[in-house]
Amino acid sequence: VKETPVQIITLTSDFVVRDPFVGTMMGVILAINRRVHLGDLTHEIAPQDIFEAALAVEAAIPFFRPETIHLAIVDPGVGGSRRALGVSAEGQLFVGPDNGLFSFLFAEPGWTAVSLEASAYRLRVVSRTFHGRDVFAPAAAHLSLGVPLDRFGPEVTDPVRLPWPGAMREGDALVGEVLHADRFGNLVTSIRARELAPLGPEAALAVEIGDEVILGLSGAYCEQPPGRLGTIVGSSNRLEIFVRDGNARHHLGVTRGARVTVRKR
Amino acid sequence: VKETPVQIITLTSDFVVRDPFVGTMMGVILAINRRVHLGDLTHEIAPQDIFEAALAVEAAIPFFRPETIHLAIVDPGVGGSRRALGVSAEGQLFVGPDNGLFSFLFAEPGWTAVSLEASAYRLRVVSRTFHGRDVFAPAAAHLSLGVPLDRFGPEVTDPVRLPWPGAMREGDALVGEVLHADRFGNLVTSIRARELAPLGPEAALAVEIGDEVILGLSGAYCEQPPGRLGTIVGSSNRLEIFVRDGNARHHLGVTRGARVTVRKR
Amino acid sequence: VKETPVQIITLTSDFVVRDPFVGTMMGVILAINRRVHLGDLTHEIAPQDIFEAALAVEAAIPFFRPETIHLAIVDPGVGGSRRALGVSAEGQLFVGPDNGLFSFLFAEPGWTAVSLEASAYRLRVVSRTFHGRDVFAPAAAHLSLGVPLDRFGPEVTDPVRLPWPGAMREGDALVGEVLHADRFGNLVTSIRARELAPLGPEAALAVEIGDEVILGLSGAYCEQPPGRLGTIVGSSNRLEIFVRDGNARHHLGVTRGARVTVRKR
Repeated sequence: VKETPVQIITLTSDFVVRDPFVGTMMGVILAINRRVHLGDLTHEIAPQDIFEAALAVEAAIPFFRPETIHLAIVDPGVGGSRRALGVSAEGQLFVGPDNGLFSFLFAEPGWTAVSLEASAYRLRVVSRTFHGRDVFAPAAAHLSLGVPLDRFGPEVTDPVRLPWPGAMREGDALVGEVLHADRFGNLVTSIRARELAPLGPEAALAVEIGDEVILGLSGAYCEQPPGRLGTIVGSSNRLEIFVRDGNARHHLGVTRGARVTVRKR
Repeated sequence: VKETPVQIITLTSDFVVRDPFVGTMMGVILAINRRVHLGDLTHEIAPQDIFEAALAVEAAIPFFRPETIHLAIVDPGVGGSRRALGVSAEGQLFVGPDNGLFSFLFAEPGWTAVSLEASAYRLRVVSRTFHGRDVFAPAAAHLSLGVPLDRFGPEVTDPVRLPWPGAMREGDALVGEVLHADRFGNLVTSIRARELAPLGPEAALAVEIGDEVILGLSGAYCEQPPGRLGTIVGSSNRLEIFVRDGNARHHLGVTRGARVTVRKR
Repeated sequence: VKETPVQIITLTSDFVVRDPFVGTMMGVILAINRRVHLGDLTHEIAPQDIFEAALAVEAAIPFFRPETIHLAIVDPGVGGSRRALGVSAEGQLFVGPDNGLFSFLFAEPGWTAVSLEASAYRLRVVSRTFHGRDVFAPAAAHLSLGVPLDRFGPEVTDPVRLPWPGAMREGDALVGEVLHADRFGNLVTSIRARELAPLGPEAALAVEIGDEVILGLSGAYCEQPPGRLGTIVGSSNRLEIFVRDGNARHHLGVTRGARVTVRKR
């Protein structure tokens, strides 16, 4: 008898942690499969901010082993007609609403998705307000038992996609935009670390945003004096713009969508 | 050799998460039994709000497998003379202070309770300020090892009970009251989903509260326009009153105890 | 075949829980060793407050089983030249930055420490901003697999130490100081419970701080009337000064370092 390895299920949501939503989903999952590791990515996504949830899951997945199952639930449309998705991509599995939360997966080829409709893999009674408990948690638990994705429902080829900008070369420059401003006012951009490398050494780069030109990438936040604008490849593996001990969003007066240009100076 | 199944222990509290209280209880539990799944229901119960903790545990337990152990600690009387309880009810086990937190269990027959007094199942030194660590966590851990409840101390037949109102038929109407207002101002009532069904289809119901009459139950929050009062069977499996993108408690000027009437319109 | 016992890894940090930092570290750890119990001590340490993190870990460790691994990351110097430490002390293992966070371990003899430098036990790419993921989490995971501490890098005999005051006898009195004020204004002192016992019964003690003399130790917060100063041996196992339903720090106008004297009255 060979022991099945313990599967990993992560949870990401905008749930109010005062309510026992996450704990209830844990109960549902463990009632179906006790041989899982359950762990929170984060439950502090800004309410209904699908974009922030997508960035959080995208940043985390390279560090998880193959076959990890990621449950992500930011679901303003619950109870309406939006589909429930199971997705296989990048060697891992994803479960959540069809509202763009998995846009980053659909930006690359090689994914498959299904609409989670098979009643065998839902709770017997499905409420209209808490699909995390009634639809998504049971799906994740059954996936962790090895049920193949195509058993959960019909294939989905047209999932909802948010604009998920990348970066483009314009002559010598690399042009992207601000994807997200976090609660400290740090600006996460659409430019990935691997796209910066071909431009030259980090010290030789100049980043333009608004009226500012920021010279050289920092290797650490503490390399900048307090109050000074800096750029860094953050833990998201993307170019980020920050003000040490300050707020880059306020400092620059920019928000999501602002143009960011990187060139060799 | 048959492997003992891994037991599940959930934790609910009003602990300040900055303090390592929950982590310390985890240490105590795992020092006694490493073959457990530990999971948080919530630690964001409003400080000393026994009622809110009771509602949180009550809402979660139907989704947990039999023999799950629920540790719930909102304990303003710690260090005083209140008893420590172990309770068996509804096929699951409960550990916490005797202050009404388990009132919902005592509302139905079939429970048994003991006072957690046996020193073999406490830490060697019991502080007067942190029974979560010294009394309740060890009790939960020993229960997870299969120690029978009656080994922990003498039977308790008169546990503390909070008023735990239900709903009553008055002629054609079902009358209950507001049990709890959450941080968004949603009002959770004493009326359970299963009590509504006999009144007729959800669309045909009228809910009266204060001077308002709300027609029809919503199936989802998004069915109401912003600012409008609605009613819904929430994830608590109880009738709730809400204002979409607003605060029903402020809107109605009511609080816990306010009368709620449901009738066929 | 004997099963290896499941190791325990705890996490303490000042991470912003909105970001998926903790979840990502979980991914890294489970990719190396799935047979671990991962649990949070707390992630709500005040930003960059090394002292608060040290107190949190120190308070928790007596309750964990031998060989538990504690990951603690409050790391303002990340990306600079500070070393990464692995420490063996008090029968348990500790992983985190060399910035004083483990000062309480170095106050007693019997510890050994190494600088975490061996590339075999780091991620392949080490960022300059997120050593929690790239250096500390892999080290903790490899320790949980039984890799001996001295394989991780050269010995460290001069780790960074914060002032970690104790208490001193001055004639009949025991003199210490305020170590930490928590968010409720409770004052944690450098005086440990075991140092108080020789002075006499708790009711016979007088605690002097600022211009106040507080008579007798409380056994529970609720023994004091609201608004009154009290002293107690808190869950930190240290003498603490509190105001019931109030703020002792504001009440006394004192902060870290304030002198505290205990004598028999």
